[in-house]
Amino acid sequence: MNPEHRLDLERADRVGMGEALLCSHKSAEQIAAILEAAHAAKASLLLTRLERGMLQQLPAATRGALDYDPVSRTAYFGSPSPLTEVPAVLIVTGGTSDVPVAREASRTLAFYGQSARALYDVGVAGLHRVLALQDELAAAPVIIAVAGFEGALFSVLGGLVKGVLIAVPTSVGLGVAAGGAVALNAALGSCAPGILTVNIDNGFGAACAALRVVSAHTLAAKKMRVLG
Amino acid sequence: MNPEHRLDLERADRVGMGEALLCSHKSAEQIAAILEAAHAAKASLLLTRLERGMLQQLPAATRGALDYDPVSRTAYFGSPSPLTEVPAVLIVTGGTSDVPVAREASRTLAFYGQSARALYDVGVAGLHRVLALQDELAAAPVIIAVAGFEGALFSVLGGLVKGVLIAVPTSVGLGVAAGGAVALNAALGSCAPGILTVNIDNGFGAACAALRVVSAHTLAAKKMRVLG
Amino acid sequence: MNPEHRLDLERADRVGMGEALLCSHKSAEQIAAILEAAHAAKASLLLTRLERGMLQQLPAATRGALDYDPVSRTAYFGSPSPLTEVPAVLIVTGGTSDVPVAREASRTLAFYGQSARALYDVGVAGLHRVLALQDELAAAPVIIAVAGFEGALFSVLGGLVKGVLIAVPTSVGLGVAAGGAVALNAALGSCAPGILTVNIDNGFGAACAALRVVSAHTLAAKKMRVLG
Amino acid sequence: MNPEHRLDLERADRVGMGEALLCSHKSAEQIAAILEAAHAAKASLLLTRLERGMLQQLPAATRGALDYDPVSRTAYFGSPSPLTEVPAVLIVTGGTSDVPVAREASRTLAFYGQSARALYDVGVAGLHRVLALQDELAAAPVIIAVAGFEGALFSVLGGLVKGVLIAVPTSVGLGVAAGGAVALNAALGSCAPGILTVNIDNGFGAACAALRVVSAHTLAAKKMRVLG
Amino acid sequence: MNPEHRLDLERADRVGMGEALLCSHKSAEQIAAILEAAHAAKASLLLTRLERGMLQQLPAATRGALDYDPVSRTAYFGSPSPLTEVPAVLIVTGGTSDVPVAREASRTLAFYGQSARALYDVGVAGLHRVLALQDELAAAPVIIAVAGFEGALFSVLGGLVKGVLIAVPTSVGLGVAAGGAVALNAALGSCAPGILTVNIDNGFGAACAALRVVSAHTLAAKKMRVLG
Amino acid sequence: MNPEHRLDLERADRVGMGEALLCSHKSAEQIAAILEAAHAAKASLLLTRLERGMLQQLPAATRGALDYDPVSRTAYFGSPSPLTEVPAVLIVTGGTSDVPVAREASRTLAFYGQSARALYDVGVAGLHRVLALQDELAAAPVIIAVAGFEGALFSVLGGLVKGVLIAVPTSVGLGVAAGGAVALNAALGSCAPGILTVNIDNGFGAACAALRVVSAHTLAAKKMRVLG
Amino acid sequence: MNPEHRLDLERADRVGMGEALLCSHKSAEQIAAILEAAHAAKASLLLTRLERGMLQQLPAATRGALDYDPVSRTAYFGSPSPLTEVPAVLIVTGGTSDVPVAREASRTLAFYGQSARALYDVGVAGLHRVLALQDELAAAPVIIAVAGFEGALFSVLGGLVKGVLIAVPTSVGLGVAAGGAVALNAALGSCAPGILTVNIDNGFGAACAALRVVSAHTLAAKKMRVLG
Amino acid sequence: MNPEHRLDLERADRVGMGEALLCSHKSAEQIAAILEAAHAAKASLLLTRLERGMLQQLPAATRGALDYDPVSRTAYFGSPSPLTEVPAVLIVTGGTSDVPVAREASRTLAFYGQSARALYDVGVAGLHRVLALQDELAAAPVIIAVAGFEGALFSVLGGLVKGVLIAVPTSVGLGVAAGGAVALNAALGSCAPGILTVNIDNGFGAACAALRVVSAHTLAAKKMRVLG
Repeated sequence: MNPEHRLDLERADRVGMGEALLCSHKSAEQIAAILEAAHAAKASLLLTRLERGMLQQLPAATRGALDYDPVSRTAYFGSPSPLTEVPAVLIVTGGTSDVPVAREASRTLAFYGQSARALYDVGVAGLHRVLALQDELAAAPVIIAVAGFEGALFSVLGGLVKGVLIAVPTSVGLGVAAGGAVALNAALGSCAPGILTVNIDNGFGAACAALRVVSAHTLAAKKMRVLG
Repeated sequence: MNPEHRLDLERADRVGMGEALLCSHKSAEQIAAILEAAHAAKASLLLTRLERGMLQQLPAATRGALDYDPVSRTAYFGSPSPLTEVPAVLIVTGGTSDVPVAREASRTLAFYGQSARALYDVGVAGLHRVLALQDELAAAPVIIAVAGFEGALFSVLGGLVKGVLIAVPTSVGLGVAAGGAVALNAALGSCAPGILTVNIDNGFGAACAALRVVSAHTLAAKKMRVLG
Repeated sequence: MNPEHRLDLERADRVGMGEALLCSHKSAEQIAAILEAAHAAKASLLLTRLERGMLQQLPAATRGALDYDPVSRTAYFGSPSPLTEVPAVLIVTGGTSDVPVAREASRTLAFYGQSARALYDVGVAGLHRVLALQDELAAAPVIIAVAGFEGALFSVLGGLVKGVLIAVPTSVGLGVAAGGAVALNAALGSCAPGILTVNIDNGFGAACAALRVVSAHTLAAKKMRVLG
Repeated sequence: MNPEHRLDLERADRVGMGEALLCSHKSAEQIAAILEAAHAAKASLLLTRLERGMLQQLPAATRGALDYDPVSRTAYFGSPSPLTEVPAVLIVTGGTSDVPVAREASRTLAFYGQSARALYDVGVAGLHRVLALQDELAAAPVIIAVAGFEGALFSVLGGLVKGVLIAVPTSVGLGVAAGGAVALNAALGSCAPGILTVNIDNGFGAACAALRVVSAHTLAAKKMRVLG
Repeated sequence: MNPEHRLDLERADRVGMGEALLCSHKSAEQIAAILEAAHAAKASLLLTRLERGMLQQLPAATRGALDYDPVSRTAYFGSPSPLTEVPAVLIVTGGTSDVPVAREASRTLAFYGQSARALYDVGVAGLHRVLALQDELAAAPVIIAVAGFEGALFSVLGGLVKGVLIAVPTSVGLGVAAGGAVALNAALGSCAPGILTVNIDNGFGAACAALRVVSAHTLAAKKMRVLG
Repeated sequence: MNPEHRLDLERADRVGMGEALLCSHKSAEQIAAILEAAHAAKASLLLTRLERGMLQQLPAATRGALDYDPVSRTAYFGSPSPLTEVPAVLIVTGGTSDVPVAREASRTLAFYGQSARALYDVGVAGLHRVLALQDELAAAPVIIAVAGFEGALFSVLGGLVKGVLIAVPTSVGLGVAAGGAVALNAALGSCAPGILTVNIDNGFGAACAALRVVSAHTLAAKKMRVLG
Repeated sequence: MNPEHRLDLERADRVGMGEALLCSHKSAEQIAAILEAAHAAKASLLLTRLERGMLQQLPAATRGALDYDPVSRTAYFGSPSPLTEVPAVLIVTGGTSDVPVAREASRTLAFYGQSARALYDVGVAGLHRVLALQDELAAAPVIIAVAGFEGALFSVLGGLVKGVLIAVPTSVGLGVAAGGAVALNAALGSCAPGILTVNIDNGFGAACAALRVVSAHTLAAKKMRVLG
Repeated sequence: MNPEHRLDLERADRVGMGEALLCSHKSAEQIAAILEAAHAAKASLLLTRLERGMLQQLPAATRGALDYDPVSRTAYFGSPSPLTEVPAVLIVTGGTSDVPVAREASRTLAFYGQSARALYDVGVAGLHRVLALQDELAAAPVIIAVAGFEGALFSVLGGLVKGVLIAVPTSVGLGVAAGGAVALNAALGSCAPGILTVNIDNGFGAACAALRVVSAHTLAAKKMRVLG
């Protein structure tokens, strides 16, 4: 038996962002081995879902090479890309409990060079808080909305803005709403038109999708030139 | 084998509203027999979920004795109670498709003597429609909110009003939101405080609950006198 | 990136009770920061779902400012409102295991100034215990019924009383009934008319709804005057 | 390819009741062929879930040989066993809509020679109806309780009687309670001790189980003699 | 607020077995208080789901008064009833992992005075093990079958025996079968006639049901005399 | 009772596309009334989920004013916007059965003025069909991928392209995959980064989201100018 | 917009069996067009899930070219492959209602040239029927077991035979077992080792898998030669 | 009460592989007792799901007799069978997190004497990694494919190879895909023909099924001889 590990180093060329390392479900040995391989290939790597307990289990040298953020449980291995000046992405959360997921999104964007702006506690139970931000919301090309419970924020935003709206349902909630399925289904089943959804707690995925919107602009411009 | 049917004729004394006849799951023979028994007992009866097809199968005499409303699929057998002058209950719907359930509620209230006011198409995808009604909503002692899809209306109202808020999730919706479970869970899992919920499409139950709020006032007043 | 936290200080004016702080899903840092903000704004605050372990992690000064009840996992920050003399709300539980949820309800009511009376162990497996209390149950303007397992208590009460009946399904139960979904669905799907439901284990929400019934009385009286 | 059909003619010797023919999921050709085989083997057969529409599709001769009951959708092919004089089984239903399932139980008992007594409309929403029957319920060796919606009847009976209590949840119900899962889970998750459950709408299975209780008496008596 | 605890001391007279104390979901304080009340009322009490960790938290005196069995997590408080000589109940398990549930059943039976016989490892993956026991199985008036995974044991037994067959699905299983829902549904949906089911892991409930079968014999004999 | 219907005529200004009329769950009377109101307001309207049977029930005049497409069950009321020349959106389907949903997307895009290109039968069971189109897929700024069954197409595309990838899971599938939940969860739970999802069968929503991506370009350009 | 349909004509070379046409979810127009394309490409085609009603809607010429079997709802378009002499596959069903799915399997095998033997009514409720066939079962290289309800047949066979065991759960069942999920989970969660499963009612898939086992023999022999 | 444990020592003769000991759900006492019984019967035994913590609780002598692999949580008690020279089975994983399940499969194969080859990180998000292995995949008589998340790997392989394809969905995944149900349903609901599935994380079961394919070859050859 001779298994071989295989890094996907050309992913950035193919889909616009490099491979990231999801640390949940992996052992410390596996994570250390993959970082070693990335080091050998001179690749930078974003690590997600890296619990503090797991971080402690990594070899000291490996640990020292990581720029770790405990709130979002992300780490940078190697240098992130240089940041854009104008933030194209606006991240809003329903409540304080959604902040870790929001930060996973902003840390991912930053690693791949995209700056973002964040607004917390924009829950619909106090609708005036949403309405006070209406102009800023309407001007954002891409909004990543992060909310748990019943996810009503997604529909309220969906009826107020023209930009791309990416809903990130979170597992924050009680009783029937615990785990995030209610917020997820609220995003999918919203009566507001054109809301897009990613998996529960998937701040990383929302950021990748936002990066695709930026890629889309470049691709569209190229297409115009070809056909124009 | 000698089964016996048993009407619950003292229900009005006990819980404040007389027995109602749920027609779904019953045969035409069963419905006719129960109405005959009610007739013999000189009891008025509210019929719910009476499909037009089932109405046609009832004996002509029975059918003639019914005041039938096809939108709500309700019928009155015997005379409803006299209406109160001031409507204590406000019924709002998210969309046009929720009207049958809203009318089941208003017809039930009317049968038991309680007048109501209804406002349709107050969906959150066009938030200005909710905001335009803010004063009327805030003045209502009891609101029955009827909505399907993701049920964001419940949370938006829950953050705007002081009165009793009874959410009636409807089965109106597409994909994951079909059948009403998403709207139901949105009401239960809302981040707005003190929202009350009844079963999916249960306009009848919401009306009965509203009637209990009215009873509560009388009971509270009585209690004050006893203790005062 | 410049996120801002936003307290909803006008909620009491809008919906009749001040903002409460749900402590589950929040870090000790977040809770302490919010209490500091409330202190700065001279606001009282009800804390719910505050586990003892989390309480220990709060700064000593913050901890000292809290009136903590370990059974209900609630804490008062600042002074609660003065209590009403006559208890309008009756809280009943099916069993001893439902007491923590019942106490979350009574502590919430007390924080917002509403006194309540509680009766425990009124389970339907010993029906005589329910029947012995029939007069007291019938006289209560608002009953908060707290039960897990199969939630049969809700239906039995629903057929016995005229007042507002708020069902709080609890997560207490075994096998298929563990987690509270069976009790929840029993409340929603009851054959007794006009039962209202809140989320599983949501003693806080039930209390807020009971406070809305009291608000409804005031609103109804105002409406009468306007129209009368 | 040479498939062979196989009747289980010795089932009565093995488990105490002969094979029955479940007609749903079968074509008219299959039903007719099986009845022909039973005829050839001089076997009596109970048919269940035989819809009237399917009955019409059977060959006239076959149809003529059946004693059909449209309410329970059962038919007798050949002679049923002679009835016992004393009914050991009491069948109660929560409501009128549960009658078809109750009759499937009583028709099955009758086919296998066991008489039964039935009481309808014993729903807990009008608890006095249950209490009025308390003595008769307490004296019954075996109760088959048939109820839909939230199935609270099972728990109420479970706390009142000593005999064997077989719950038959029915698919009668609305919203979350449609289809019978709530009533089923209420029976399984009841706080009353020793309730036994069969599948949703399974009047046939409940009757077979009641027949097993009778067999148990004979087996126990035999055992006593062997050991005594 | 003046809550009162209420023991159900007449349960034995009403339903044939005394109240039992379910220890899961209760605090050590609550358990100790209830045992004290039972002591004051000179009542014996069966305790179920008493984890060893919880046992350690009870006051030493209380702990000393308990006859504790760690496998079944049951304890006797006070004296159990004297045992019958002939075991009317046969308990079989599919595998070794089902033993704790089987012992909860046998300990419950023993507490209420009913002796039982147990056979372990009768899984259908080695069918010869079932067939070797065929005579003993066929002679048992009541079988409690305890099995997890896919619960095929229930159907195999259901086709082999005449006695009362009580299925206890266990939470033992992997992947889709973890938690016991598959075994439960297998018992409910079995093609074998007249299988009865209790909740997942509910050895206590199965034993109570078996006790009801014994009560049924007495009730049936009484009925015969009355009518004979 | 005086309900009022409310059209959301300013939606195009707010969110970039005008209100659309979802015809499922509405009666012919309701649809006709809304079209009349749109006519009075000189508004164009896109109708979705308009079954042929419902079309027949509309008044002849109304019916005549509709440009109906039976495959997608959409209709245009009034004139659609003029089409863009270069198609920014590429629509691909896994199989022939997904075509109706794909056409709902293309008809929606066309109504709001956006041209699109469609490629059918790009299922992964014949991977060469995907690979043959690799260049065209890589050049598309926005791909709407429409697939049922296990939705593997979404992941395969997600690993091949840089553009925005909008997954539309369809209800096409058998057994566990019937209804679309498996395809939906495959899109949400994909190991490929940045896939966005809409509700099951929601071709309309996917098109609206694609339109938002176009709006995002305009908004981003505006932002650049403001800040540049 | 210029969509193109794409047949997968090289599938036989790649995976060992040609493309089949699943007719559910397709319109008559789509089916006719695909058959026309197959005709043009001189390809034979197996059609599955072709309801009789749909067959009637096909053009007469197309219909005439089909060899249709109404029980299995399959049709042959073009000539099937010549049959093997020795049947390597044994198909067994739990009951008569499982025959349509069993025939879908045997018709699929026959179309691709593999003969099979079928045995019906081998349900475990009459275990002697299984035991009587034990030798034949043990000698079969591949068994396709078709069963609904609780699927106990899979486990019983899994403990008796050495060959490949392919479980096909069917949607045949009542109550909780309706739709096939219980039988499916029983196959997946079986305590017998090495049972393989396909989707609910997927006789076609089971046959394709059996064909893969035959391919595996050829591949294994080739491998031996290469390495030997 | 006299329970007896029963080992199934003839399983190897009956189904082709000896009994294995599943250690989850068992106590250290039970495991030790079974190993003692196996020792007495001179039987080798494969242990699965043996957590390191449980290993530590076993008596030192027992522990010393085990060949333990921490990654797969398997142990060999006694000698495994001698290995075949040519590996008939190819094991592939979607990602690094699936390795423990893949190793459970390879360790099981090895214990029963079948060698295998393993390839890791063949995920479809980097499709080129699958395509690079296409020849090796096509030549494998049996592939065990191990994947979590959305399980797209199963469909991609199903369209590329002729051999037996056994899907092992793993519990590796996030949000809706956590726990493995999505990957499982993807395998069952795949559009690729003839994919076979085992339970979630069931590497042991997949290996047993692969062993059955080898048995099938022998049985088929025997059959040929008998009939030839």
